[in-house]
Amino acid sequence: MLGRAVPDLGAIACELDAIKPKLKPAGAVLPLSAVKIEAPIPRPARNVMCVGKNYHEHAKEFTRSGFDSSASSAADAIPTAPIIFTKAPDCVIADGEDIRYPEGVSDSVDYEAELGLVIGRGGRGITKADAYKHICGYTIINDVTARDLQGKHKQWFLGKSLDTFCPMGPWLVTSDEVDPENLNVKCWVNDELRQDANTRDLIFDIPTLIETISAGITLKPGDVIATGTPVGVGIGFTPPKFLKRGDRVTIEIDGLGRLSNMVA
Amino acid sequence: MLGRAVPDLGAIACELDAIKPKLKPAGAVLPLSAVKIEAPIPRPARNVMCVGKNYHEHAKEFTRSGFDSSASSAADAIPTAPIIFTKAPDCVIADGEDIRYPEGVSDSVDYEAELGLVIGRGGRGITKADAYKHICGYTIINDVTARDLQGKHKQWFLGKSLDTFCPMGPWLVTSDEVDPENLNVKCWVNDELRQDANTRDLIFDIPTLIETISAGITLKPGDVIATGTPVGVGIGFTPPKFLKRGDRVTIEIDGLGRLSNMVA
Repeated sequence: MLGRAVPDLGAIACELDAIKPKLKPAGAVLPLSAVKIEAPIPRPARNVMCVGKNYHEHAKEFTRSGFDSSASSAADAIPTAPIIFTKAPDCVIADGEDIRYPEGVSDSVDYEAELGLVIGRGGRGITKADAYKHICGYTIINDVTARDLQGKHKQWFLGKSLDTFCPMGPWLVTSDEVDPENLNVKCWVNDELRQDANTRDLIFDIPTLIETISAGITLKPGDVIATGTPVGVGIGFTPPKFLKRGDRVTIEIDGLGRLSNMVA
Repeated sequence: MLGRAVPDLGAIACELDAIKPKLKPAGAVLPLSAVKIEAPIPRPARNVMCVGKNYHEHAKEFTRSGFDSSASSAADAIPTAPIIFTKAPDCVIADGEDIRYPEGVSDSVDYEAELGLVIGRGGRGITKADAYKHICGYTIINDVTARDLQGKHKQWFLGKSLDTFCPMGPWLVTSDEVDPENLNVKCWVNDELRQDANTRDLIFDIPTLIETISAGITLKPGDVIATGTPVGVGIGFTPPKFLKRGDRVTIEIDGLGRLSNMVA
């Protein structure tokens, strides 16, 4: 126990390293099924920052799909600089909560399994060499996307930010327990394995992302960055396999647990 | 006086209508020069939502400039649906504060004079007919932009969110005092008038913007929306007229006052 109340992990992100060794179990031991676990950063202090087209094969499948407003041809599919967009922080939901099907707003809802990171120590002008010192932990993010809106509105914020479109969790694993450069990322829709990749294949690695974003934007404790999704999203199939009511999306990343949400 | 302390206007945005008639002057009368006025929403609870290419002549000048990653040719310049992107809420600064020149990060800093609105009553699925009932007031926003980053990173968040890149103010004017569909918008760099337009020429009017965004995203009290900039930004000139240290950008909108910031 920490000995004081905190609103959420975001509020103590900058001191997690110092707090962790002092934590002692206290109170009754409860089974996991008896508690409700919130998303690790249930309500980020500003929009979640996300990286677009950050795995080669996914960049190609997305551009081929016709929904990619950032590239005009296959030759242009692989980005030459990180593509950064945002999701509204209010669409974060926890493991087990429902993704709300946006009836009448979109009919092409897609999943994107991603490694998420949380900033512990803030900063501006962070170099690649120092980048990992600024990360307090990792989690899983499902960057749910309305493909029709993503294409139609050119900039991706709207299609990425529909209510409930950011499942995050099941918990935060502190940096000392994770090798973020070698994590298997798997995603199932119902029983079908759709995505199966490894974070070593990121086009822009985590130090590059932190250096690029923090060059002109001061990063803050509790900031959340989703590092991009690998090949195998719904629009990668012909015909596309969009999510429908009743589908369950389950994402597993080595050492980070399992994030599972139903579309309702 | 309100009779209770509030952190900022954002915290009472949903009750401004009810509060306004009850406000009574109290305490000593101070000259404006004796007080420091913060931005009306000094730290929005999530990213500022912005509209891209929302005036015809600006859409054309931007696509012509070569920095527009949302259009591949002049034929594609005018958007067919609102383009919505975001700016980090931490880059809001007040009237009179300095825009920090991002040395070593960008060498193509540009201004964008815009009418900004603040949501009073939140909601989802707001119709055009009801849109104005959800707005509590209006202010001026300078959507400062690093054009090189905006082009290079395809999605605009990075180039729009450098520290200090969102001058806002000088104050909020409540909705009852503004006709947002007929406001002259003027912008000077030093003594040169660069932008001179009227909000009646918006491609997507305010009710359309509110209806589009709120279709799938629940709007919240204190949300800030910047409605887009007219023709006359720096990249509209040949050669481009980028901002440099020592320049002063001054924006005036009918009835909303004057927002003036130096580049330092």
